[in-house]
Amino acid sequence: MGTKVTTIGFDADDTLWHNERFFQLTQTRFSELLAEYAASEHLAERLEAAERRNLGRYGFGIKGFTLSMIETAIEVTEGRVPASVIRALIEAGQEMLEHPIELLPHAGDVVEELARTHDILLITKGDLLDQERKLAQSGLGDLFDGVEIVSDKTPLIYEHAFAPFGGAERAVMVGNSLRSDVIPALEAGAWAVHVPHDLTWSYERSVAPLDHDRFHTLRDLSELPEHLQRIGQI
Amino acid sequence: MGTKVTTIGFDADDTLWHNERFFQLTQTRFSELLAEYAASEHLAERLEAAERRNLGRYGFGIKGFTLSMIETAIEVTEGRVPASVIRALIEAGQEMLEHPIELLPHAGDVVEELARTHDILLITKGDLLDQERKLAQSGLGDLFDGVEIVSDKTPLIYEHAFAPFGGAERAVMVGNSLRSDVIPALEAGAWAVHVPHDLTWSYERSVAPLDHDRFHTLRDLSELPEHLQRIGQI
Repeated sequence: MGTKVTTIGFDADDTLWHNERFFQLTQTRFSELLAEYAASEHLAERLEAAERRNLGRYGFGIKGFTLSMIETAIEVTEGRVPASVIRALIEAGQEMLEHPIELLPHAGDVVEELARTHDILLITKGDLLDQERKLAQSGLGDLFDGVEIVSDKTPLIYEHAFAPFGGAERAVMVGNSLRSDVIPALEAGAWAVHVPHDLTWSYERSVAPLDHDRFHTLRDLSELPEHLQRIGQI
Repeated sequence: MGTKVTTIGFDADDTLWHNERFFQLTQTRFSELLAEYAASEHLAERLEAAERRNLGRYGFGIKGFTLSMIETAIEVTEGRVPASVIRALIEAGQEMLEHPIELLPHAGDVVEELARTHDILLITKGDLLDQERKLAQSGLGDLFDGVEIVSDKTPLIYEHAFAPFGGAERAVMVGNSLRSDVIPALEAGAWAVHVPHDLTWSYERSVAPLDHDRFHTLRDLSELPEHLQRIGQI
């Protein structure tokens, strides 16, 4: 008999609701706006490079993404980009900040069900206000016992987040990112459940720790309650 | 005899370290870059209007400020702003995100002294990563018992922040903003100390609640320990 799981941490973007699709739509718009200056593939590469280069100063989220789009637009046009295109990029970013929340299949039901029997936490990266807005709009806000919006997901972050709820040993982290949700949570001593999403930003990909005995992959959130019963009995 | 004060909340920007001066330096740069398109005063007004208009979507912080500068530059030039100016604005924002921390007089000593006798919290608005960087650079990070980086400062935020430390009744909030640090903290039931800073963003100004018996103004942080002794004995 191991330690009973008492706490579940949920990632938000692309675990509970759609997110990456809005980034990809905006990237398509970005490519269209700059089509006369560079090939779409090249543009995507340059934007991705800017995003990664700027992560250390902007962190994750739509505001930094918008700034990286503007920076890349100036770069690839060698300063010839018209202000009308920059304005369109700002507006595209603002639209992202207003996009309606659409829950992923089973997210609402499963969170509601597990909130009855477990402490549940939301642990997410991104811009503070934007993540708060999405949580409020999701209608799930009141179900969570804690909400952590963090600048990055590290083992220490998980340790601290789970500490008031019995510690990482008794917690499962659930998310679509191997890099952010799974690997650091396992390192903190928690269980981890990977629920892959067909759109996941390249940055968030990693090698699945298949031989870790606290790691599991589920097809979607509907399998989570049964999975928790299973690991609770190890 | 009232309830003993056990907890002190500190605002960060322009309470513990300089901040607004970097915004003002950047605004000056903004005016210089756009001098040929509009008078400096008009520019300041338009930028301020954009900042306030965008608060609801960007929240507080340098990334949103940079986006508002770019938006205003396009607006006031009616789309004629060259990409080189936009690039300079992005760089100005990035420089702000890298500016070295300079503690305000007495901040280091007073925080260190009070950390020995009280639970101390940092409660600040702004971009997550940027505020974390500044706290780390300040050298004060390890002294705080809690750090709350929030999207806005409301009575509820103070209630929640102080709850694990004996509640707002036993807490004093210390800051330079009447609007963000003083008024909502008093509404939450805490004490409040206003330490004015000669540069304070117009948004943060408000009417001092002079007849509130839990409100006080101090000239600088050096007066805080004695003030706490005084109110602790009411």
